[in-house]
Amino acid sequence: MIDTLIIVGVGLIGGSLGLATRERGLVRRRIGVGRSRASLEKARELGTIDDICLDLDEAGRRGDLFLLCTPVDRIVDLTLKLAANARPGAIFTDAGSTKGKIVEQLDRRMPEGVHFVGSHPLAGSEKRGPEAAEARLFQDRWTVVTPTKQSNVPAVETVVQLWKNVGSRVRLLDPEEHDRALAVTSHLPHLVASALAGILPPDRAPLTASGFRDTTRIAAGDAEMWPAIFLDNRAAILDALTSFEGRLTEYRRAVEADDAGRLLELWTQGKQVRDGLG
Amino acid sequence: MIDTLIIVGVGLIGGSLGLATRERGLVRRRIGVGRSRASLEKARELGTIDDICLDLDEAGRRGDLFLLCTPVDRIVDLTLKLAANARPGAIFTDAGSTKGKIVEQLDRRMPEGVHFVGSHPLAGSEKRGPEAAEARLFQDRWTVVTPTKQSNVPAVETVVQLWKNVGSRVRLLDPEEHDRALAVTSHLPHLVASALAGILPPDRAPLTASGFRDTTRIAAGDAEMWPAIFLDNRAAILDALTSFEGRLTEYRRAVEADDAGRLLELWTQGKQVRDGLG
Repeated sequence: MIDTLIIVGVGLIGGSLGLATRERGLVRRRIGVGRSRASLEKARELGTIDDICLDLDEAGRRGDLFLLCTPVDRIVDLTLKLAANARPGAIFTDAGSTKGKIVEQLDRRMPEGVHFVGSHPLAGSEKRGPEAAEARLFQDRWTVVTPTKQSNVPAVETVVQLWKNVGSRVRLLDPEEHDRALAVTSHLPHLVASALAGILPPDRAPLTASGFRDTTRIAAGDAEMWPAIFLDNRAAILDALTSFEGRLTEYRRAVEADDAGRLLELWTQGKQVRDGLG
Repeated sequence: MIDTLIIVGVGLIGGSLGLATRERGLVRRRIGVGRSRASLEKARELGTIDDICLDLDEAGRRGDLFLLCTPVDRIVDLTLKLAANARPGAIFTDAGSTKGKIVEQLDRRMPEGVHFVGSHPLAGSEKRGPEAAEARLFQDRWTVVTPTKQSNVPAVETVVQLWKNVGSRVRLLDPEEHDRALAVTSHLPHLVASALAGILPPDRAPLTASGFRDTTRIAAGDAEMWPAIFLDNRAAILDALTSFEGRLTEYRRAVEADDAGRLLELWTQGKQVRDGLG
């Protein structure tokens, strides 16, 4: 059992981990850290945290395990601020959608005796805030954990066990490999959904049906979160975008050439992939 | 009350209209027409039709109202074959996702005294076949009806009333206007979802989460249906694709330039559109 879990950012992911660890009795005390007192009060009211701390120095001293659930561009700075006051043996992890730069910087910059291990739970939705938290959010989903040669082995085990204990399956990946995969499986789809929503003329909205709505659902995601991810994982996202644009060009050529056979081929390939996801 | 309704294609849309008209007592007799006896038998078993007819000449003679629910590239031919034997005053409509070419051809080619009015119910899913039918599929959804100057006014009224009677709201649109709107609200999203599914490397599938799945859901749609729609509505789809590619290029430039402000702007515009759809 972990004594004190510090959750930085008590929205969908942080709040859900708070609920899940309470439901399963995994930690003695959960403390929420954040910039908005209102969000933290709401989270305490909902039972996702037991206590609130607005002071980073104090939070750093109190935690045994830290979970950073902020936009990716704030994870490194906040971790270093908290780590500066942390006890020897304290363990940090995060829930950011990118891993390469975060892990690389923290591998170099964490203080002696305090450990960071990168995580990314593949669970989420376009919802945000403490009210979006669900105790079962991680149930039967995958969490990617990204240890490196620098990682402290017991810290990796603690982080893996945390995710398993809240119901997730865990996969270990190299941080760069994670970023290349997620560029295609998550970051590009968000960019594409946003671009598609962005070209809808307002007067056409009544003529959208479930197809448009599903395809663009994730374009409603948090504006603090997604632009930061696109910049953090720039190279891999641009590669994925190039590959997607190439595929669109194949579609364009087949439509322009009135080539029913080629369109059927393109459609069938996409359908097979999608059918395979269940 | 309509005496005999002929439903050509007893899948999701045709089957749902069969169930809806039965539930609401709108027609005396519903006859299913199609190429696959197995599908028709299944539909009869499920109660979506009362009877089966595999002969187009006979079906043409028996119907008062005809609903064509086939891929768009078969609607004109099948309508003309059925209409050749139809009684004076018989009314035809369809459920095709494109309207311009279908309506233009049938306005010119329908026999004297037999009427065609184009329809497009904006209801559907990636599911297909008689088992996918639902009596409430049209409830509170929009159906576009596309009369022209050539249309017979009582026939338009009958078709509008049919959709209203199964719970749909009805909007009248010019066929070309329908096609330009649907290119953006439906056809392009299908092409985009398919292209996105098409570039997923097989070994990345375990790292997809709900975002990828939702964005590509409609890529699992019927392979007999979608390539035909892309070709039928070629000009409007290529225009929509050009606009979408332009938006992707704006995203690419912002990512390449590390321009967080511009990315926030692009993201926020998309988010506002998507939030507005509810």
